[in-house]
Amino acid sequence: MGDFKGHILPGVFLITLGIWWTTKCVLKYAFKNQKQTSYFDPKALFCRMEMLEGIVLVGMALIGILSGQFIPGGPHLILYNYKENQWVRLLDWHHFTIYLFFGLLGVTNILCSIRSLPPSFSKLMLLNALFVEAFVFYNHTHGREVLDIFVHNLLFLAICLTALITFMELFIQAKITVELLRTSLFLLQGSWFWQMAFVLYPINGNPPWDLVDHNNIMFLTICFCWHYAIAIIITGAIYAFVTWLVKSRFTRFCPSEVELLKNAEREQDSEEEM
Amino acid sequence: MGDFKGHILPGVFLITLGIWWTTKCVLKYAFKNQKQTSYFDPKALFCRMEMLEGIVLVGMALIGILSGQFIPGGPHLILYNYKENQWVRLLDWHHFTIYLFFGLLGVTNILCSIRSLPPSFSKLMLLNALFVEAFVFYNHTHGREVLDIFVHNLLFLAICLTALITFMELFIQAKITVELLRTSLFLLQGSWFWQMAFVLYPINGNPPWDLVDHNNIMFLTICFCWHYAIAIIITGAIYAFVTWLVKSRFTRFCPSEVELLKNAEREQDSEEEM
Amino acid sequence: MGDFKGHILPGVFLITLGIWWTTKCVLKYAFKNQKQTSYFDPKALFCRMEMLEGIVLVGMALIGILSGQFIPGGPHLILYNYKENQWVRLLDWHHFTIYLFFGLLGVTNILCSIRSLPPSFSKLMLLNALFVEAFVFYNHTHGREVLDIFVHNLLFLAICLTALITFMELFIQAKITVELLRTSLFLLQGSWFWQMAFVLYPINGNPPWDLVDHNNIMFLTICFCWHYAIAIIITGAIYAFVTWLVKSRFTRFCPSEVELLKNAEREQDSEEEM
Amino acid sequence: MGDFKGHILPGVFLITLGIWWTTKCVLKYAFKNQKQTSYFDPKALFCRMEMLEGIVLVGMALIGILSGQFIPGGPHLILYNYKENQWVRLLDWHHFTIYLFFGLLGVTNILCSIRSLPPSFSKLMLLNALFVEAFVFYNHTHGREVLDIFVHNLLFLAICLTALITFMELFIQAKITVELLRTSLFLLQGSWFWQMAFVLYPINGNPPWDLVDHNNIMFLTICFCWHYAIAIIITGAIYAFVTWLVKSRFTRFCPSEVELLKNAEREQDSEEEM
Repeated sequence: MGDFKGHILPGVFLITLGIWWTTKCVLKYAFKNQKQTSYFDPKALFCRMEMLEGIVLVGMALIGILSGQFIPGGPHLILYNYKENQWVRLLDWHHFTIYLFFGLLGVTNILCSIRSLPPSFSKLMLLNALFVEAFVFYNHTHGREVLDIFVHNLLFLAICLTALITFMELFIQAKITVELLRTSLFLLQGSWFWQMAFVLYPINGNPPWDLVDHNNIMFLTICFCWHYAIAIIITGAIYAFVTWLVKSRFTRFCPSEVELLKNAEREQDSEEEM
Repeated sequence: MGDFKGHILPGVFLITLGIWWTTKCVLKYAFKNQKQTSYFDPKALFCRMEMLEGIVLVGMALIGILSGQFIPGGPHLILYNYKENQWVRLLDWHHFTIYLFFGLLGVTNILCSIRSLPPSFSKLMLLNALFVEAFVFYNHTHGREVLDIFVHNLLFLAICLTALITFMELFIQAKITVELLRTSLFLLQGSWFWQMAFVLYPINGNPPWDLVDHNNIMFLTICFCWHYAIAIIITGAIYAFVTWLVKSRFTRFCPSEVELLKNAEREQDSEEEM
Repeated sequence: MGDFKGHILPGVFLITLGIWWTTKCVLKYAFKNQKQTSYFDPKALFCRMEMLEGIVLVGMALIGILSGQFIPGGPHLILYNYKENQWVRLLDWHHFTIYLFFGLLGVTNILCSIRSLPPSFSKLMLLNALFVEAFVFYNHTHGREVLDIFVHNLLFLAICLTALITFMELFIQAKITVELLRTSLFLLQGSWFWQMAFVLYPINGNPPWDLVDHNNIMFLTICFCWHYAIAIIITGAIYAFVTWLVKSRFTRFCPSEVELLKNAEREQDSEEEM
Repeated sequence: MGDFKGHILPGVFLITLGIWWTTKCVLKYAFKNQKQTSYFDPKALFCRMEMLEGIVLVGMALIGILSGQFIPGGPHLILYNYKENQWVRLLDWHHFTIYLFFGLLGVTNILCSIRSLPPSFSKLMLLNALFVEAFVFYNHTHGREVLDIFVHNLLFLAICLTALITFMELFIQAKITVELLRTSLFLLQGSWFWQMAFVLYPINGNPPWDLVDHNNIMFLTICFCWHYAIAIIITGAIYAFVTWLVKSRFTRFCPSEVELLKNAEREQDSEEEM
C-alpha cells in the first residue's frame, strides 16, 4: 500500500462512492419534490440500488484486502512471524482493517435492503467504518517526515468531520444540506488520496517533494481547501444536472394545471425550509 | 487492582452489562414492533428487570470496592498514612471511585424502578459514571511505559465515545441504532479490559510484551478495531436471536389476517425510519 | 484575589447559585406535575423570582468587582502604569472580567423578567458568562506550579462541561435531567473553589501542600470526583425535599377523585418520559 | 496582507456583515411577532435583500482578492516561481483562499435568492467558508513570535465557535438567540482583526508591543473578552433599536382591539419560549 497505486486505489473508490451518494441523495430529493406530478414511483428502484451499493462495497473491500495482502512482499494473511519474533508488515494490516469495516458496511447495506435489518443500521455501520478509518490513520504515521504526517493529518481531519456529521445524523433526521455536506467530504477524501499519492510517491521522474520544507506544508494547507472547493463545485454540478434531468424526464406530459399546482407547492416547500 | 485479576473482573462486569443492555434494548424494540399481534404485555416485566439491574449493579460495585480495598496489601479504607506523611495506594482509591459511581447508578436504577425518581435519571447517572470513569483513567497513568499509557488511552477513548452518546441521548430521544452503538461500545470496553490484562500482566510463563516497542502500539491499534468488529458481530447475533425469539414465541397463535396487518405495518415503520 | 478569601468568595456565590437554581428547577417540575390538582398558580411567583435572581447576581458581581479592585494592593481601576511601563495586576483584572460577565447576566435576567427581552436571552448570557470564565481560567495560570495548574484545569473542565450543556440547551428544549446536571456542575464548581482555597492557601498554620508532588495530583483527581458525588447527593436531597414539600403543601384539600386522576396522569407522564 | 491595512480591511468587512446580519435577524423576528397587526409583508423585501447581500459578498471577496494579489510585491496570481524553485508569497495565497470561499458564499446567496437552490444551501456555504477560514488561520502562523501566534489563535477560537454554531444550525432550526450569538461572534471577529492590526503593526510612531512578554498575553486575554462584551452591547442596542422601529413604524394605525389581541399573543409566545 505504501506506494503510488496504493493511494490511487482508495481515491478511486472514495470518489466513486462520493459521486454515487451525491447523485442518490439529489435524486431522492428531486423525486420527493416532483412526486405530485410524476407518474414514476422510485421506491423499488432505490431499494434495488441499495442492494447494488452493498454488493459494490463488498467488492471494493475485497479488492482492497486482496491487493493489499497478496501483492509481492505483502503479508499474505500472516500476522506474526514467530521465527523472527516480529509483526509482519503492520501497515498493510492497518489498511486491511479499514477495508474490513467498509466490507461490513456493504454487508449491512445488503441486509438492510432485504429488510433483515432496519434501514438506519447502514448509517450506523458507516459511522463505525469512518471511526475506524480515522482511528487507524491517526495511529498510522509514527516516525515519518513532517510533511508525510501533515497530509495524513489532513486526511484524518476530513474523515473526522465526515464521522461527526454521520454521528449527528444518527440523532437528527438528515436534510439534503447535511447529506450533501457529507458526500462532498467523501469527494474531498478521495481527491486528497490522489494528492497524497502525487506528493509522497512522485512518478515519471518528477523530483520528489521536500518532506521537511515548511513552505510545502503552507501550500498543502491551501491545496486542501482548493480540493474542497472543487468537491463543492462537483456537488453543485451534480445537483444541477440531476434536478434538471428529473424535471425534464419525469414531468413531460403533465397538464398545465398540475404544473401550476406544482409551482405553488414548491414555493411553499422553499418557505418552510427557510 | 494492578494485576491480571484486577483487569479481568471489570471486563467481566462490563461484558455482562453490555450483553444484558443489548438484549434489553432489542427486546424492547421487538416487543414494540410486535405489539399489534402479541398477547403479552412486557411493561411489568421490564419494570422488574430495571430493579434487578439496579441490584446487580450495586452488587458489582460492592464486589469491586471490597475486593480492591481488602486484598492483601490493599488500602483497607485508609486514605492517608499520617506516620509516613503519604497517601495510601491512590491507584486503588481511583478504582474505588469508579466503582462508587457505578454503585450510585445502581441505586438510581432501583429508585427509578419504584418510581421515586423519573426514569430518565438513570441515564443521567450513567453519564456521570462514564464521565468519572473517563476522567479517572485519563489521570491514571502517570510515569508508566508508553504501551501501558497507550492501552489506557484506548480505553479512555472508548469511554469518552460512550459518554458522548449518552450525553446526546439526554437531549434527543434515543433510537435503537444509538442504543446499540452505546451497548456495543460497552462490549468493546469489557473485552479491551481483558486485552489489557493479557498485555500488561502475561500469565502462564508467557514472555512479557515489550512496553516500549512501537510495533506493539501499531498492532494494538488494529487489535482495538478487531475487538470492536467482534463487539459489532455479537450485537448483531443478539439482535438476530432476540428478534427471532420474540417473533416465534409471542406470535404463534395470531390469525392470518392479523399477520397480514402486521406485515403492512412493519413495512410502514421501515419506510418511516428510512 | 490570589489568597484564601478570594477563592472562598466565588465558592460561596457559586454554591448559592447552584442550590438556588436546583431548587427553582425542581419547583417548576413539581408544580408542572401537580398542576391538575393544585389551586396555586406559580407563574407570578417565578417571574418575581427571576427579577430577584437578576438583582442578586448584579449584587454578587459588584461585590466581587469592588472587593477585587479596592483591597489594599489592588489595581484601583488602573489598568496600565505609564510610569513603569507595565500592566497593573492583570490577574485581578482577569477576575474583574469574569465578574463583569456575571453582572451582565444579572442585567439580562432583570430585562427578561420585565419582558424587555425574550426569556431565552438569559440562557444566552449564561453561556457567554461561562465561556468567558472558562477562557480566562485557561489563560490564567502561566508559570505556576504543576499542582496549581492542575486544580485550575479541573475548574476549567467543570466550567467547559457546564458551558457545553448550556450550549446544547440553546438548541434543544431542556428537560429536568439536563437542568439538574447543569446545576449540579455549578455546585461542583463552587465546592472546588473551596478545595482550591484550602490546597493553595493553607490556613491556621497547616503545612502547605507540596505543589510538585504527583501523588497530590493523583489524590485531587479522585477528590474532584468525590466533590461531584456530594454535589449529586445534595441535588438528590433538594429534589426529594422540594417534591415532598410541593406534594404535601399544595394538594391537601383535593378530593379523592382528583387524587386518582392525578395518579393516572403521573403514570402516563412517567411512561412518556421512559 | 501582512500589514496594518491588510488587517483593517477584513475587520471592516466582518463588522459590516455582523451588523447587517444582526439587523436582518432582529428584523425578521420583529416582523414575525408583529405579523398579526402589520399591514406590511416583508417577504419580497427580504428576498431582494438576500440578493443584495450576495452581490455585496462577491464584491467584498473580489476587493480582498485583488488588493491581496496586485499590491506592489504581491504574487500577481503566480503561485510557483520555477526559476528559483519556490512558492510565491504563500501567505497571500492563504488570504486569497479565504476570500475565495466567502465569494462562493456570495454566489450561493445569489443562487438561493433566485430560487435555483434551496435557501438552506447558503447556510451550508457559510459553514464551509468558516471552516476554511479556521483551517487556514490554524496553519498560518508557523515560526512567528508567541504573541503573534496567540492573537491568531484567539481569532481561530472565535471562528471555530462560529462554525460550531452554524454546524448545529444545519441540523436544528435556528432560534433568534442562536442567530444573535452567531452574529455577535462575527462582530467579535471583525473587531479582533482591528485589535490585531494595532498590536502587530503599530502606527504613528507608537512603540511596538513586546511580542514575547507574557504580560501582554495576559492582557490580550481579557481584551478579547472586553471586545466580546462590546459586541454583545452593540447586538443589544441593535435589538432595542430595530424592535422599537418596527413597533413604532408598522403598527401605528392598528385599532385598539387588535392591540389587545397582539398583547395576548405576545404573552403566549413568551411563555412558549420559556
